[in-house]
Amino acid sequence: MDSKTYRVSVQLKPSVLDPQGKTVAHALHALGFEEVTDVRIGKIISLKIHGDLPDDEVRGRIDAMCQKLLANPVIETFELVED
Amino acid sequence: MDSKTYRVSVQLKPSVLDPQGKTVAHALHALGFEEVTDVRIGKIISLKIHGDLPDDEVRGRIDAMCQKLLANPVIETFELVED
Repeated sequence: MDSKTYRVSVQLKPSVLDPQGKTVAHALHALGFEEVTDVRIGKIISLKIHGDLPDDEVRGRIDAMCQKLLANPVIETFELVED
Repeated sequence: MDSKTYRVSVQLKPSVLDPQGKTVAHALHALGFEEVTDVRIGKIISLKIHGDLPDDEVRGRIDAMCQKLLANPVIETFELVED
């Protein structure tokens, strides 16, 4: 058995306000980076998975992890990032 | 002039402890996802850039934004994510 790392990207839905991103955008403007018009901040979660489950089964379990814990499906979207 | 979105991934260096990731790993175990052996949590920052600067100049400016504000180079690494 060996380990494989999967990466999940969790982003706020486009309709949801991102005050953290707004704050970063203001700070970038203050530093002279005036070309930045919008900033959105999401999470990237790296999961090291141990075992010999087939790849599509692991993907199903990661989907369940996102639904139950890693993301808030009401305001966030998630997707597996391919390396 | 139009806008283009660039995405920057900011991760803790492998040598830096990630207590948030550890907490998520424990929670996943408690939910029955025992195949997860390690979790690391990073940020993904989407920057909407306005203007007609050439692509390599924009990349240079994004590198400067990361050095100055978006990442802490002592404990974090950053890279542009290609879509």
